[in-house]
Amino acid sequence: MPQGDESWRIRRTAADMDRLGETESIFALGNGWVGWRGTLDEGEPYEMPGTYLNGFHEQRELSYPEDGYAFPEHSDTVISAPNAALVRLWVGGEPLDLRTGTVRRHERVLDLRAGVVRRETEWISPGGRGVRVRSTRLVSLPRRPVAAVDYQVEPLDSPVEVRVSADLLANERVPERADDPRAASVIHDPLTAETGRRDGTDGVLVHRTERSAQRVAVAVAHRVDAPGTAATDTELTPDRFRLAVTGPLRPGERIRVTKFAAYECAHVDGTPAGELADLVVAEADAARAEGFAALLDAQRAALDAAWATADVELDGDPELQQALRFAVFHLLQSGRADGDRTIPAKGLTGNGYDGHVLWDTEGYVLPVLTYLAPGLARSALRWRHAHLPEARERAAELRLAGATFPWRTLGGRECSAYWPAGSAGLHVNADIADAVLRHVAATGDEDFLAECGVDLLVETARLWHRYGHWSDTGTFHLTGLTGPDEYSALVDDNLFTNLMARRNLRGAADAAERLPEAAARLGVDPAEIAGWRAAADAVHVPYDGKRGVHQQSAGFTEQPEWDFANTRADDYPLLLHFPYLELYRRQVVKQADLVLAMLRCPGEFTADEKARNFAYYEARTVRDSSLSASAQAILAAEVGHLDLAYDLFAETALQDLEDLGDKTADGLHLASLAGAWLVVAQGFGGLRDDRGVLSFDPRLPRRITRLAFHLRWHGHRLRVTLTPDAARYELPDASPADAVELWHHGERLRVTGDAPVTRPMPPVPDAGPEPPSPPGRRPHRRSQEDVGGAG
Amino acid sequence: MPQGDESWRIRRTAADMDRLGETESIFALGNGWVGWRGTLDEGEPYEMPGTYLNGFHEQRELSYPEDGYAFPEHSDTVISAPNAALVRLWVGGEPLDLRTGTVRRHERVLDLRAGVVRRETEWISPGGRGVRVRSTRLVSLPRRPVAAVDYQVEPLDSPVEVRVSADLLANERVPERADDPRAASVIHDPLTAETGRRDGTDGVLVHRTERSAQRVAVAVAHRVDAPGTAATDTELTPDRFRLAVTGPLRPGERIRVTKFAAYECAHVDGTPAGELADLVVAEADAARAEGFAALLDAQRAALDAAWATADVELDGDPELQQALRFAVFHLLQSGRADGDRTIPAKGLTGNGYDGHVLWDTEGYVLPVLTYLAPGLARSALRWRHAHLPEARERAAELRLAGATFPWRTLGGRECSAYWPAGSAGLHVNADIADAVLRHVAATGDEDFLAECGVDLLVETARLWHRYGHWSDTGTFHLTGLTGPDEYSALVDDNLFTNLMARRNLRGAADAAERLPEAAARLGVDPAEIAGWRAAADAVHVPYDGKRGVHQQSAGFTEQPEWDFANTRADDYPLLLHFPYLELYRRQVVKQADLVLAMLRCPGEFTADEKARNFAYYEARTVRDSSLSASAQAILAAEVGHLDLAYDLFAETALQDLEDLGDKTADGLHLASLAGAWLVVAQGFGGLRDDRGVLSFDPRLPRRITRLAFHLRWHGHRLRVTLTPDAARYELPDASPADAVELWHHGERLRVTGDAPVTRPMPPVPDAGPEPPSPPGRRPHRRSQEDVGGAG
Repeated sequence: MPQGDESWRIRRTAADMDRLGETESIFALGNGWVGWRGTLDEGEPYEMPGTYLNGFHEQRELSYPEDGYAFPEHSDTVISAPNAALVRLWVGGEPLDLRTGTVRRHERVLDLRAGVVRRETEWISPGGRGVRVRSTRLVSLPRRPVAAVDYQVEPLDSPVEVRVSADLLANERVPERADDPRAASVIHDPLTAETGRRDGTDGVLVHRTERSAQRVAVAVAHRVDAPGTAATDTELTPDRFRLAVTGPLRPGERIRVTKFAAYECAHVDGTPAGELADLVVAEADAARAEGFAALLDAQRAALDAAWATADVELDGDPELQQALRFAVFHLLQSGRADGDRTIPAKGLTGNGYDGHVLWDTEGYVLPVLTYLAPGLARSALRWRHAHLPEARERAAELRLAGATFPWRTLGGRECSAYWPAGSAGLHVNADIADAVLRHVAATGDEDFLAECGVDLLVETARLWHRYGHWSDTGTFHLTGLTGPDEYSALVDDNLFTNLMARRNLRGAADAAERLPEAAARLGVDPAEIAGWRAAADAVHVPYDGKRGVHQQSAGFTEQPEWDFANTRADDYPLLLHFPYLELYRRQVVKQADLVLAMLRCPGEFTADEKARNFAYYEARTVRDSSLSASAQAILAAEVGHLDLAYDLFAETALQDLEDLGDKTADGLHLASLAGAWLVVAQGFGGLRDDRGVLSFDPRLPRRITRLAFHLRWHGHRLRVTLTPDAARYELPDASPADAVELWHHGERLRVTGDAPVTRPMPPVPDAGPEPPSPPGRRPHRRSQEDVGGAG
Repeated sequence: MPQGDESWRIRRTAADMDRLGETESIFALGNGWVGWRGTLDEGEPYEMPGTYLNGFHEQRELSYPEDGYAFPEHSDTVISAPNAALVRLWVGGEPLDLRTGTVRRHERVLDLRAGVVRRETEWISPGGRGVRVRSTRLVSLPRRPVAAVDYQVEPLDSPVEVRVSADLLANERVPERADDPRAASVIHDPLTAETGRRDGTDGVLVHRTERSAQRVAVAVAHRVDAPGTAATDTELTPDRFRLAVTGPLRPGERIRVTKFAAYECAHVDGTPAGELADLVVAEADAARAEGFAALLDAQRAALDAAWATADVELDGDPELQQALRFAVFHLLQSGRADGDRTIPAKGLTGNGYDGHVLWDTEGYVLPVLTYLAPGLARSALRWRHAHLPEARERAAELRLAGATFPWRTLGGRECSAYWPAGSAGLHVNADIADAVLRHVAATGDEDFLAECGVDLLVETARLWHRYGHWSDTGTFHLTGLTGPDEYSALVDDNLFTNLMARRNLRGAADAAERLPEAAARLGVDPAEIAGWRAAADAVHVPYDGKRGVHQQSAGFTEQPEWDFANTRADDYPLLLHFPYLELYRRQVVKQADLVLAMLRCPGEFTADEKARNFAYYEARTVRDSSLSASAQAILAAEVGHLDLAYDLFAETALQDLEDLGDKTADGLHLASLAGAWLVVAQGFGGLRDDRGVLSFDPRLPRRITRLAFHLRWHGHRLRVTLTPDAARYELPDASPADAVELWHHGERLRVTGDAPVTRPMPPVPDAGPEPPSPPGRRPHRRSQEDVGGAG
């Protein structure tokens, strides 16, 4: 249980060595461009090493035992760039390997304020030689191409002969992964050496990929601090540059090697190999010239600035306080504000899902970043815009209209190899539109709307308008597609998709009317806009009048129930133990779908409907997806089941820190991390802004004694502080004239720079008994635990 | 256009050499155990050589880019046994190859009464040497393991030096096939030599497969008739035995080599290689001892006996007369009455669909064979029974009950690699039950029912009972599965499946009640039977009251229409040009589905409903499947659109002879061939027997001046002769006391051995204008062509 300052740190010791893959993901560092998995300095043991560059990938062939029209022929697969994080050590000729010798002490700490991983190890070699190793690793947030590691070794008690080998290694061996559809496929030796050179203690390697035709250059520059008795030498092979520092160390002496690495990649038809090498050499040189201490200072400064908005203070549950900071830290380092970079489902922390971008990004991550770091959200949406050409081509290939964005991709083309849960998940298009609309509403960034956003809105609206059809009775239907819940597929009128398409169509119509120039550029005329509005107004909303609940899709509530009585605990996740034939036709829900619709489109439901719907679907939702708990938590809070909300909150917040899904080794679940913040803001804070108006209906679970968070709204930093008695809204940085309008439990407030507003928290209405979850699937009852010291 | 006797022959000449694959299928010979594709004696040129043994296959891995629970891991794939049909010829050192030299004459004839393929070629070698080659090939219907070829060569005008090489060749080179999901995958060199030997002019080879662990032995025994100047020699390698006869031939002299081959296969843990070799050697020896002429006589006798029941006489369209005999011939030689052998979708004529058995067998082929050659149908159903263990295992794997038969298989396990159109096609189980029920009704074979049939009925009934669910209003539903139409998938309450499941449930209940011993053996108690009957009675029948038509599946008639106006002629077949996403959600039908339901379960619909349904679905059925035309033709005849019926009849009858789908090279479409007979009997004869009662509602299209066919009913051979004025029913072989009861246009008749019955043909009621087919998709209007001489 973390205490005090532990809320800003994640610590792992030798005791955690049996969960290497998990710690590799948790200790991953990144800056939205470069990602280093949290492998040990010495490289081994590892579960899955990884050095990822945003967008850097190889293609692999998709071969279907039974092919179909427009099934994707290739998949983009994330591959490792050359690994510059390695520093190997030999002690008396024996390699430092924590599986051998005696580990007297071993600790690694992820410092969430400093933005570094610190490591300290005391190790006695099998031959009885003791050393202490300290290292600090960072991936620079302000300096895009730069990562660095500072490595020190000293004898423990008696003189030792050591050899420190700072490696840059391409085509690092990677293990095969388990036979699980959610894991990545492995491409061995994906890089072909183009050129390499060494200069003094520095080196550079340039490689290329075969099919994706990408070029990657990595330079390492070193600073060596060692006794005069030490010797340095370097070695260069096509796949490795090595600087070795060798010599005797007496107690009190040390060898310190600081390695500054720089990464760039480009299309092979772009910057030539030599020029790319020159570029990264200059970048690594510049970082060295600045020095490691300066990198540390800049890192801290960048994070201080980010935390000012991003931090959440939660009193009453120190472990979740820590988890929230961990979550936000990883979100902050997952993206970049410069350029057009997106954020894959695992960020740059692992190769799960082949490193693909899925709807997790627009559906979960961007709704957080739009409030905390809007530049990162804008950049990710610009990335979608940059891939509009591929999305238009895909729409044409599918004989549709407008743009059809891929269900999963890295390079912009559809990479989903199972179409009922891939291409048929058209809602990803509405999720992108939703992210655009929210971003513009929250930031007021009209330039972004005019340059990018409107294109995304219009082309996705065109998709819906073409895809849907009108019934005889004048309702508009979207049939034969798949909603968020992956235990259903190819359904009619998925309510989430229908309502999100409505939002998409109206948002496009509004934008096109507001921006006549853009509309003209896109060929939108008033008739087309009228068509969108008509379709949006007529979207069918499936409702079961008899049961008094909405239907996840047409007919859903008439489907047979799942036989929970005969489902064993080890039958979960169900997709590994039952065929789709059974899953798809029954009322069993993998992940929030209708509940998510109530979150994204809250104005489409009355409070009573929300309560009834929530209870109905809670009983049928098994949460076999990590995307589910946060949406359930938020709605549970809204309908007044705060214990359940809290327990679901804990599940999403601890998804990776406690590896609840046994999948953290593949990379962090950014959507779960984002979900933790969303539960804070939307669940306990009751934040809604779907109609462009900022409103809060805060209500605190009993274990939380104080909750404070911030968000950016039209350039202002709004601080919200909740206690059981009161909610306080303030603009800490604003001048007196600055103001934000918001609603608190239905009351309109005006918060100005010099006038914070405090309002009482109304009592939580009695929501009655908690609706049952499926047998054995209720989250752990953390809400009822009595914990000691508060954070 | 075939004339006179041509109706019993299929002839191809040198002009047809550019359609080699098609002729390889059309000239295929088989006996339900051994199948020889109609390749040239000399082997080359070929499109796809093939020597198939019923059930002989290798397994290949199915690897999914995105895997799922219970996706099959292996597929059975038909492979060639060693090819014993080869006889190569060298003339003056130059190989006979019809692509070289001068072909003065070349003709091959499939003789449908003799059951042989005769070939005659006059060829001048590039070096100017002329020879005449005559060969006769047969696969013995009475002698299961035996096939033979009689080969003669003589000089045309001047002396030549020839070398006749009779080969037995394993691992014959096979070409890669086009990238079409409907083609077979090719396994190269699938056979591993185990042993081989030669003895005089004879040889034997034994091979095995790796994964399927099957052993195959082939022996060849020769009779050589050559001038004394000729020399013979043999050659044996692991994959080839060769007998060569070499010598000079003067005009008037000839070399004749008659090759008798015998085939056996077994599991590698079964008969040892040496014993299997001894067995086939003995079989080949015995055939040689009997002699080629005797084989010919026995073949003719077997066919004469078969044709007595199987022949159809059709006056008015000689080409279709020929096509009908061609169709029936291939059906007769596709199966065996002995043992438990099934009939793959392509028979043993090609490797399309990997040589798999699909529902074509029970849905199309057995409904013919039950009437024409009931022993073959029984054997095929026994094969299903033999694979009940695998079907029970599959049901357990799918977490269902009873038995779930594979959508496609060779060895008994599911081999479908695209589950929405594979495992989800549960109707195959009802098709098997339907074939059992029809077989028992038509033959009265109670032993078969007690030993096999009841097991199949009960275990499939259990599947339906478990799979279905009850609505609140007491209707029974089968949801989330796929019916016959492959342009829909994962639908609810597919009407065909529902009605067939009803038949299945009731048939199982009846059988279990009639056979208490079997019921006890299967653990069926009265409560279970009552459950089946209750479900059968309550099966939901989706009907659109507004449009006055049944729905192919729930909601079908409310789906968006297909945009035929913007579908080009070269957009067909649609599955190669549109994604399933579009196909599945629209009202476009690949193949008869609801129309097939009206054929199989005629009593479930009124005449008015049939007419309205037919018109509605005809307008939306594009016939992208060769399974469709026959069912459409039969219903078109029933509802009174006889021109359309006739044109659809021609399409199914000529499917392979004219290669209408450009797929005949992969093997014959046995379901289309069967469909031709079904249109005769069920369409123009109006045969129905779904309630165990034999009835006819005959009506002749205007081009047919006389139509006669036969069928077996409880052991009797019933002959039905139709002219525009009268229908005559007779029992040509029966004693005076024998009788068959039947209905003619609603009138109950009793036909006895001494009293044929003749009844007038009532006028065809006016059915109004022909319902439109989709634009450009109406079949060719053969019905309105004026043809000359009648057959």
